[in-house]
Amino acid sequence: MIIMDTDATQQQIDRVVTEIEGYGLRASVIKGAYRTVIGLVGDEEKIPFDHFAVLPGVKEARMVDIPYKLISREYSKLSRELEKMVVKVGGLEIGAEEPVFIAGPCAVESKEQIFKIAEQVKKAGAHILRGGIFKPRSSVHSFQGLGAGSQEEAEEALDWLRAAGRKFGLPVVTEVRGETQVDLVAEYADILQIGARNMYDQDLLAQVGRKGKPVLYKRHFGAGIEEYLSFSEYIAAEGNKDIILCERGIVPVGKGRSYTRYILDIAAVPVIQKETYLPIMVDPSHATGRRDLIFSMSCAAIAAGASGLMIEAHSNPAEALVDAQQQITPDELKEVIDACRSINKALVAERNKKVGSV
Amino acid sequence: MIIMDTDATQQQIDRVVTEIEGYGLRASVIKGAYRTVIGLVGDEEKIPFDHFAVLPGVKEARMVDIPYKLISREYSKLSRELEKMVVKVGGLEIGAEEPVFIAGPCAVESKEQIFKIAEQVKKAGAHILRGGIFKPRSSVHSFQGLGAGSQEEAEEALDWLRAAGRKFGLPVVTEVRGETQVDLVAEYADILQIGARNMYDQDLLAQVGRKGKPVLYKRHFGAGIEEYLSFSEYIAAEGNKDIILCERGIVPVGKGRSYTRYILDIAAVPVIQKETYLPIMVDPSHATGRRDLIFSMSCAAIAAGASGLMIEAHSNPAEALVDAQQQITPDELKEVIDACRSINKALVAERNKKVGSV
Amino acid sequence: MIIMDTDATQQQIDRVVTEIEGYGLRASVIKGAYRTVIGLVGDEEKIPFDHFAVLPGVKEARMVDIPYKLISREYSKLSRELEKMVVKVGGLEIGAEEPVFIAGPCAVESKEQIFKIAEQVKKAGAHILRGGIFKPRSSVHSFQGLGAGSQEEAEEALDWLRAAGRKFGLPVVTEVRGETQVDLVAEYADILQIGARNMYDQDLLAQVGRKGKPVLYKRHFGAGIEEYLSFSEYIAAEGNKDIILCERGIVPVGKGRSYTRYILDIAAVPVIQKETYLPIMVDPSHATGRRDLIFSMSCAAIAAGASGLMIEAHSNPAEALVDAQQQITPDELKEVIDACRSINKALVAERNKKVGSV
Amino acid sequence: MIIMDTDATQQQIDRVVTEIEGYGLRASVIKGAYRTVIGLVGDEEKIPFDHFAVLPGVKEARMVDIPYKLISREYSKLSRELEKMVVKVGGLEIGAEEPVFIAGPCAVESKEQIFKIAEQVKKAGAHILRGGIFKPRSSVHSFQGLGAGSQEEAEEALDWLRAAGRKFGLPVVTEVRGETQVDLVAEYADILQIGARNMYDQDLLAQVGRKGKPVLYKRHFGAGIEEYLSFSEYIAAEGNKDIILCERGIVPVGKGRSYTRYILDIAAVPVIQKETYLPIMVDPSHATGRRDLIFSMSCAAIAAGASGLMIEAHSNPAEALVDAQQQITPDELKEVIDACRSINKALVAERNKKVGSV
Repeated sequence: MIIMDTDATQQQIDRVVTEIEGYGLRASVIKGAYRTVIGLVGDEEKIPFDHFAVLPGVKEARMVDIPYKLISREYSKLSRELEKMVVKVGGLEIGAEEPVFIAGPCAVESKEQIFKIAEQVKKAGAHILRGGIFKPRSSVHSFQGLGAGSQEEAEEALDWLRAAGRKFGLPVVTEVRGETQVDLVAEYADILQIGARNMYDQDLLAQVGRKGKPVLYKRHFGAGIEEYLSFSEYIAAEGNKDIILCERGIVPVGKGRSYTRYILDIAAVPVIQKETYLPIMVDPSHATGRRDLIFSMSCAAIAAGASGLMIEAHSNPAEALVDAQQQITPDELKEVIDACRSINKALVAERNKKVGSV
Repeated sequence: MIIMDTDATQQQIDRVVTEIEGYGLRASVIKGAYRTVIGLVGDEEKIPFDHFAVLPGVKEARMVDIPYKLISREYSKLSRELEKMVVKVGGLEIGAEEPVFIAGPCAVESKEQIFKIAEQVKKAGAHILRGGIFKPRSSVHSFQGLGAGSQEEAEEALDWLRAAGRKFGLPVVTEVRGETQVDLVAEYADILQIGARNMYDQDLLAQVGRKGKPVLYKRHFGAGIEEYLSFSEYIAAEGNKDIILCERGIVPVGKGRSYTRYILDIAAVPVIQKETYLPIMVDPSHATGRRDLIFSMSCAAIAAGASGLMIEAHSNPAEALVDAQQQITPDELKEVIDACRSINKALVAERNKKVGSV
Repeated sequence: MIIMDTDATQQQIDRVVTEIEGYGLRASVIKGAYRTVIGLVGDEEKIPFDHFAVLPGVKEARMVDIPYKLISREYSKLSRELEKMVVKVGGLEIGAEEPVFIAGPCAVESKEQIFKIAEQVKKAGAHILRGGIFKPRSSVHSFQGLGAGSQEEAEEALDWLRAAGRKFGLPVVTEVRGETQVDLVAEYADILQIGARNMYDQDLLAQVGRKGKPVLYKRHFGAGIEEYLSFSEYIAAEGNKDIILCERGIVPVGKGRSYTRYILDIAAVPVIQKETYLPIMVDPSHATGRRDLIFSMSCAAIAAGASGLMIEAHSNPAEALVDAQQQITPDELKEVIDACRSINKALVAERNKKVGSV
Repeated sequence: MIIMDTDATQQQIDRVVTEIEGYGLRASVIKGAYRTVIGLVGDEEKIPFDHFAVLPGVKEARMVDIPYKLISREYSKLSRELEKMVVKVGGLEIGAEEPVFIAGPCAVESKEQIFKIAEQVKKAGAHILRGGIFKPRSSVHSFQGLGAGSQEEAEEALDWLRAAGRKFGLPVVTEVRGETQVDLVAEYADILQIGARNMYDQDLLAQVGRKGKPVLYKRHFGAGIEEYLSFSEYIAAEGNKDIILCERGIVPVGKGRSYTRYILDIAAVPVIQKETYLPIMVDPSHATGRRDLIFSMSCAAIAAGASGLMIEAHSNPAEALVDAQQQITPDELKEVIDACRSINKALVAERNKKVGSV
């Protein structure tokens, strides 16, 4: 769609029409009371809107369509009623009726630690084990994860993570921070995680996409939803649609002290479910940065319809090497999971009663 | 607390100390490896931190304490366990275990309309009736509410609202937009609402505070939580602590199109509950601006622990004079209320089981 | 313009068309490859877009036009070349080639103080004297300005301000915080200021608009430019177009400590000049909250094309009762004004050389 | 610094003190009227504040010091008077009195194109040639730069860029998007650019840091200044302090349409100059996304004290393959550079007159 200035001349309008036709589309000119609007009939993706935007007399030039057709619910054959498409990991289904819980320490610290926590989170009801090996950190002076050492050390830590998962029947997920780590991590992990800070790393997205394994893909804290979904097409374009989206908070706004590390954009859950058929999870640990908010934010996420949660849990948060403030104990994790299941059950019962479509 | 520059001189430190003592406090000087920090012993509220911040050698000067002591949970004698303090409206208790639902049209449009909707929302399970008479609107060319006409018209509309409420056993709440409307509105409404756009209007806050009626006080979309709580002290300072806080979304951030009108800051619910003893409600209608998100955001708010919801409902949203996009039907309202009650019940059961303190 | 869902039925399209025609406009239907777009021919202001947005099959319904026609450059007969329209205050022209400087203390504190500062800022090169009498403050426990006392005290302070201005040939501006203060302030001030926190107060805007005096109208820190310009129509709709706009910073975004109180949105200056014919000034004092940034931000604002600056200056910032951190000394003010004039001179010379239209 | 809850017990305070001593620091306890604050004497970097934050009775635990000591002005021996430290590229000095202009097309499109533009920007007064080869793009369906093809094509494009620069006496800068491209790009470019989207890519930062070449390092649009400076330590920690910082806009906030692609945070220029000794440039092209704002934003940036500008220029913007809306013509570039030089000259003259230290 092209919107013209109020004082655009006929000549300027004609030029736009001629150029549109040059791209193989048909232009439909609507002369309004003040402005002329030019609609496009044909495949809008062929049109360089940037080019049209700088033509004389043009006020605005933009696509009417969404820029994420590959993963779009509207362009798929799925119904509007939030019909489910699930991502399968082992026997698990992410995106089905039952919420899925990913839990584990922020970082893998030792063999003993990951085995102990794996056992505990399994007992608490978690389905998937997480544990960071390549840690993105704000300060170069902080612990960067066991992957920061030699190749052997990274591999050893990955092996502990996988072995701990296998022992307790938990698939494992870990973050891959850069292209050079993809092959290695893909050997060990059941799900490859792309962290928020790497959301825009198109080379990494494409490479992970090509591995054909499920991808847990987090939203960047500075990204709008449209941008997030557009970037996920870098994975989908490789033929991999086993993408698990994850909301983990956006940058806080406003003066004065911030009570949470980020703002959990809870409405992103139903919005993304309406826009795409991909499952969307929530990470309350990073979103808030506060262990005392995990319970309420987990309940809220499940009540909003999230397909699951990713929660940081540690046997002894006060001794964790990273992010002690946002890790909870296995006992607390059990309370969270129990409450979420109970809420989901209540919600499913209500949804089954529902006839309208609010 | 005063933090000095790394190269602050002894003379500069001495001056700060002397000035602090001049205000009747004691200064405690801590010489760190790089910086000197000066702690204050005594009543920090006596100290003009702005003044200290511009003294030579000073890097930062700030209160250690919170600026909202009157409404603070920490400064009250309440326990940390989110012990309840309730606001009573008629026989209703806002802030107790059961969530309270406020519903009604965005604007009162006619006598018939408000009576019809009152009956419908009552039947759907609502406890309090809302309806705008003085509408804040973005455009001077839009319908401004029946209160925009003569004094008589405003009074007539207020009378309809109250009568509709009385008939169906619903206390009523309506917004008071300016100081000149307070006396009038207070004659008719059971709860006085201060809208988000007026959050900073200290004269209005003080005047409403003096009326001694419960106040529904909404957070501004550009306000941080600290600022919001500080401004609520303008009401509390008048001796009125029957303040019902309400989260209704903050300004969206990020490039590209916005899928919701505002960002619902769901974590504000537990954060405010930990900071104050006041009840906090959520308004999903304004927060999202989308009727198709009301159900999920209402469920999320209750699951996060909100004391209730304020929802816009209309017999026929497509015919509403304002905000058609964010009003739901009475049938849809019933579904929302039923689901919220069911979630709350599940949550209460889980909380009773909980022993830890996540 | 109405954009339909990809799977909208012909019946749904027909209904939209019929309804549009019912409002006296003509609908122009464009069937694209995926979507149907319906253009409107006629006066879009007659169309309730909210209503259309909730009709079945409709994806998006929005005005193509801008919502601030009264103050729009495009809808006026002015040329695109930023042709000037000026606001006259006494012999001063705001919006002409020479930048105008408003300076004075944050708050009027005493007769002696305001006379002393008036003399100093005049000497430094300022054109207009500012001084707050009704101060908006974040904390109920802070000094609220001399206007917070009795009517007599407010009047006395206003009289000092005007007298100080008259003595040194400076028109005066002061903030009016609520409707009940408008008549009083209009008796004394040459320009009525509406502060950022009151940007949305439509009753105040209308009342100030009716006074027929120039209005200095600040942008709220949570307001987008479109919203800001739309609200200024509340003043313009009263027949008063002597509106001086003022950018004073928007809410900061991002984690971690904020180095400035707000974010100075410097691009708002040229954007607003292109959208409207009203002059736009900048307030670097509130935007940054830091006296050590006033010089550079003032230079930047003038270089960006601002019509002037509003700067807080105090004889002795460290003794100011409010906002000591953001007030500069008269000597520093002189340096700022000299530098700004010098930059403006350089810019005018370059603009005169310019032939293109970057 | 550790701040305790108002009701912290003596036992809880003692535990904190004991643990601090365990890390080899000394604790200094200040008992205030309400709270106890514990200051740390010794090297704060040894303290795991996350750990202390979750101890019982602790309200807040944070470093008093800045997290970017390597690049800090305060920790260097430089004076407060913004004493200059320059980055040298060939005979050029970035960070000295004269502003430096980087210009060129968004993307290298062909040999002919880059030679032609190189000649034109040289003539317009630019000092350094830019041109993207590996383009980060929002959509997988857009042109990704000539580097997206084979290794040979990437190398050929890099060779054109360097050759065009050499022919017209312009050092060249181009973006390196991922670790696998660093070696290749470093062979051809005089300055390695890390784009905004890669700001958080610590592996890339470290690798680029090790190359020992000057780095142009852009701020991410979601990053606070503290975070930006902290991440730049990943480069500095490799022993490379030839870092040129660059502000290019942060995410917009607020409802309604956005008139610029990002918000140019102009105050970041003086703030960063006060915090670090590194030069800071501004990129008005990406910050605004609008060619008609480049002139005013460039002038503002230089007036704010920026060490230079990075501007996208193209012989024929309407034919550019990417970002046509933000590229200006060589003639317009000349106007921008002339105006900036003129403003800088005026500013230097004024600064030389200045005696105070606003």
